[in-house]
Amino acid sequence: MLTRIDHIGIACFDLDTTAEFYRATYGFEVFHTEVNEEQGVREAMLRINGTDDGGSSYIQLLEPVRPDSTVAKWLDKNGEGVHHIAFGTADVDAEAAAIGEKGVRVLYEEPRRGSMDSRITFLHPKDCHGVLTELVTSASPSATTDH
Amino acid sequence: MLTRIDHIGIACFDLDTTAEFYRATYGFEVFHTEVNEEQGVREAMLRINGTDDGGSSYIQLLEPVRPDSTVAKWLDKNGEGVHHIAFGTADVDAEAAAIGEKGVRVLYEEPRRGSMDSRITFLHPKDCHGVLTELVTSASPSATTDH
Repeated sequence: MLTRIDHIGIACFDLDTTAEFYRATYGFEVFHTEVNEEQGVREAMLRINGTDDGGSSYIQLLEPVRPDSTVAKWLDKNGEGVHHIAFGTADVDAEAAAIGEKGVRVLYEEPRRGSMDSRITFLHPKDCHGVLTELVTSASPSATTDH
Repeated sequence: MLTRIDHIGIACFDLDTTAEFYRATYGFEVFHTEVNEEQGVREAMLRINGTDDGGSSYIQLLEPVRPDSTVAKWLDKNGEGVHHIAFGTADVDAEAAAIGEKGVRVLYEEPRRGSMDSRITFLHPKDCHGVLTELVTSASPSATTDH
């Protein structure tokens, strides 16, 4: 079961400038930052609200850290904007398997590491009406609220 | 104050087909549908989760009902995908005024009617790092959960 909008992933050219825009304009503070070497991105998570499944909803800002990363290529083509959306679930393995059986292409054979030690996978946007869609299981309930 | 991710607006060619994809793939049911003549769209709201400000987060599917609507033109250019994101607030008038004073272009002089009798305005995507951003005040707390 998918129980929340976990985050909206937004690709940007400069993470610090964009995070400052979100802080100054809306009051959203950076909750967490990290570099995901595998994905080739530096990320900032801005926590927007808590959700009734015990998790949170975030804006995730993504800056490429190398020109061959998928986000760098995406930015070259599209410019800044919404890159993907993510739904939270308690069991990303089971959800990915069930959705894959329905004929939607799941991009990773096994879930990989996402922000804040979550486990993530992606669904092919061409199978999802143009929306790159991520499934996320948080590391632990406290990981979404405590650091 | 902006207190939640209210919705993610997704433009699609066929509302019924896309809503059925979201139901069959993820289990998300249609919570509400309406036509917004002013915006030139037919909308379906899929409620994903409750939020800790007493509201909800939705996926909003948008199908143009006339070829000159902004969503029709957007689809011609981009194909299906994420069209905008929306933050919820108790006071869209005050938020729009405060954000406008920071130099972000607010697209409506006064908030207009959005889904489920909400009051909405939009911020210019070029002032928001490429993201068309909506601000929403729900009609009433119960309107986000009761019908």
